[in-house]
Amino acid sequence: MTAGGSDLTVVTAGVTMLADALRDQGVATVDVAWTPPVAGTEDDLTAVMLDPRRVPANARAHAAMTAAAAALVDVRPADEALGLRAGHFLHAGPPITWDRMSGPLRGALIGAVVYEGLADSTDHAEARLGAGDFTFEPAHHHGAVGPMAGVVSGSMWMFELYDETSGNRSWCSLNEGLGKVLRYGAYSPEVIERLRWMRDVLGPALQTTTRASGPIDIVAIIAQMLQMGDEGHNRNRAGTLMLLKEWLPGLVGSGLPTGDICDVAAFVSGNDHFFLNLVMPACKLMTSAASGVPGSTVVTTMARNGTDFGIQVSGLGDEWFTGPAQVADGLYLGNFGPDDANPDIGDSAITETAGVGGFAMATAPAIVRFVGGSVADAIATTRRMYDICVGEHQRWALPIMDFRGTPTGIDVTSVLRTAQLPQINTGMAGRVAGVGQVGAGLVSPPMECFEKAIAALAQAVTR
Amino acid sequence: MTAGGSDLTVVTAGVTMLADALRDQGVATVDVAWTPPVAGTEDDLTAVMLDPRRVPANARAHAAMTAAAAALVDVRPADEALGLRAGHFLHAGPPITWDRMSGPLRGALIGAVVYEGLADSTDHAEARLGAGDFTFEPAHHHGAVGPMAGVVSGSMWMFELYDETSGNRSWCSLNEGLGKVLRYGAYSPEVIERLRWMRDVLGPALQTTTRASGPIDIVAIIAQMLQMGDEGHNRNRAGTLMLLKEWLPGLVGSGLPTGDICDVAAFVSGNDHFFLNLVMPACKLMTSAASGVPGSTVVTTMARNGTDFGIQVSGLGDEWFTGPAQVADGLYLGNFGPDDANPDIGDSAITETAGVGGFAMATAPAIVRFVGGSVADAIATTRRMYDICVGEHQRWALPIMDFRGTPTGIDVTSVLRTAQLPQINTGMAGRVAGVGQVGAGLVSPPMECFEKAIAALAQAVTR
Repeated sequence: MTAGGSDLTVVTAGVTMLADALRDQGVATVDVAWTPPVAGTEDDLTAVMLDPRRVPANARAHAAMTAAAAALVDVRPADEALGLRAGHFLHAGPPITWDRMSGPLRGALIGAVVYEGLADSTDHAEARLGAGDFTFEPAHHHGAVGPMAGVVSGSMWMFELYDETSGNRSWCSLNEGLGKVLRYGAYSPEVIERLRWMRDVLGPALQTTTRASGPIDIVAIIAQMLQMGDEGHNRNRAGTLMLLKEWLPGLVGSGLPTGDICDVAAFVSGNDHFFLNLVMPACKLMTSAASGVPGSTVVTTMARNGTDFGIQVSGLGDEWFTGPAQVADGLYLGNFGPDDANPDIGDSAITETAGVGGFAMATAPAIVRFVGGSVADAIATTRRMYDICVGEHQRWALPIMDFRGTPTGIDVTSVLRTAQLPQINTGMAGRVAGVGQVGAGLVSPPMECFEKAIAALAQAVTR
Repeated sequence: MTAGGSDLTVVTAGVTMLADALRDQGVATVDVAWTPPVAGTEDDLTAVMLDPRRVPANARAHAAMTAAAAALVDVRPADEALGLRAGHFLHAGPPITWDRMSGPLRGALIGAVVYEGLADSTDHAEARLGAGDFTFEPAHHHGAVGPMAGVVSGSMWMFELYDETSGNRSWCSLNEGLGKVLRYGAYSPEVIERLRWMRDVLGPALQTTTRASGPIDIVAIIAQMLQMGDEGHNRNRAGTLMLLKEWLPGLVGSGLPTGDICDVAAFVSGNDHFFLNLVMPACKLMTSAASGVPGSTVVTTMARNGTDFGIQVSGLGDEWFTGPAQVADGLYLGNFGPDDANPDIGDSAITETAGVGGFAMATAPAIVRFVGGSVADAIATTRRMYDICVGEHQRWALPIMDFRGTPTGIDVTSVLRTAQLPQINTGMAGRVAGVGQVGAGLVSPPMECFEKAIAALAQAVTR
């Protein structure tokens, strides 16, 4: 603003009514985009934003997240890798009891109980589960992640990833393919039969192959797939092909029966989502590396159990902040519709927590197109995510954004200040146990998770 | 333009001087982009554009080009597939005699003569070639295409592709990899050794694999690769991975020694350009289907022999229209520079003739980035190519262009009216025989090819 009246320039913030009125009167006006923070969080937000630890702590969390390595080093059964004993099951999302579990999570547990031979029918399995005969724990509590229901039992095989920077390890189950599969809550005989083949043939073959191949750099493959139309959550086609290429010499030279090699190659290459189960534990290693920085407001976990959506925040360690899981907006398979869909489920939102998936939507416009969006919508989504992240991933460049790095490290304070929620790409499970997948689409966490987190962050400042 | 003077709107065409002057005087002005046609072609252009056959003929050529199928159906030696006898060699581009041949074409022929056992040293081979002991013909004259020097001799193995729509077949040699390779004019012992392994192991293995796999739809793989950052000429990474996936079951179950299977898998998957040699014959089938439509001004071949750049036009059949091949603008390997580069060489511009490669640059911004360009430059290149093409390929969608089809079917009249030359992505061979690859970059045909073609098209109208 200058001293001379005729040179007056007004700077306006937020809603454009004042700016429009000034412009109508011929007054030069500069708009500043601004939205009021989420109502009720103003005081906590102020306390946290004034915390002098916040900026350096977030920089440290972001640096740790993007410096993390992730190499596939082994494939092992869960009882051996994670010490899961009989009757002990892992599941996706924050902790939950049987009585509050949604259909797909119950369905996956019923299937897992039958598969492990702990019941002789699905009814028997359901009765034993309801009677409290078994133990359930979030996979995240063991450094593991699982897509959709994310149910893991002792004899299921897990990918084991290693971060040489932090020394951390992470695990994820092997992807079963699409349609009627355990992770979507299906438990029919074909589901159990496939799990047995995965236990008896696929798991051991991939162990031999992986040990023969030596460590495979998953961070590098993710960097490549982001240049090849994959966002690493709902699209993993190039990633799966690159993994197959890495495994090929070890698989062919494994000495296994030719029929098994053919079956394994066909199973992996026939499932464009196979690589999702490697993106997820790689992202888990990234977010684990960023966890536990005092004063940091960076989100280190987003996960859903089909009932609750839970987040964890770097400065607050392993505490969960939950709210009701939402139903995704998306495309339905066959005759399924919105009434058939269960609320959001799975640990796969760890991909968005690390800056890919919905955050890298700009690189995979085919996905928004499925739900009626355009390339411009895909780019706009990624642009919005830069507004709520503390930085970018230098090794993960998005060609369509002029090779800018992926938006990485969701800041709780930015989410609340802009009222802009993280964008998550996801699959949709049927609401009823046993149904399986009904669609795929886009979803966001409930704001409640961030409201609870900022309250706890404020308490931690003033304590 | 309205009757009232104050509402006057002026429409200006071409250079903006008049429009600028009018605007300075407060006169509303609408600019129409217009450039004068290439000088000296005006009369021929007028005659051809007034030819009533032109528009329907071009529509027919475009429809034939985009309706063509291309399935990989076999892998066979050239003597068997093309009837090449000893001492008979194919080469890239239009016809040329030994005395006018550039270094890389001479180098590749020297290597091929030694490889076929027709000389006992490279000096001896060069002497026999200079003495006129052998026969040379363009690969295009046999329905075949070859990248760079494109030299083919009888014992080299060829991909055989089939278009069930036209009943045509096309052929291309197997890709040797990068660096010191025959197609770039290298002929050292390692080059000959690799060709022998390709003859004795790779070719037979791929024949067994391809016959076991059954026909592979190359048009469909190209559609996918265009969504995965490949433009099908200088980038073929996703295409190579998808081909490998298709071959995998047939290769693993081939009954070949495990060592050979591993070597073949490693050779194919270790060369991101392997699939180029399948994109090329697929594009050859497309352009062959569009050839020979009376009155059509659609380009059906662009090819270079390292000395001359030649084009063929649908309405003029197999006649070549040539001009001097240009040196590409690009990036050099190691210590090589512009002085080391040979002018443009190879049949690979068949990819641009069919609407991919440089025409699909928007989908592969990584390529322009190598030569200092940006994403905007890549998009601008593809946009310009729409201006010189008669249509789009409905099955080949470019995500970044909001899934618009690739620009397909170069129109000689549009090139001359807009003075806008086709954009070709290419590799660069060393100028001296024996050197091999020195770089990769961007190049255009000489305008002379189009000037000669319009003269012949005009003659055909008035005849």
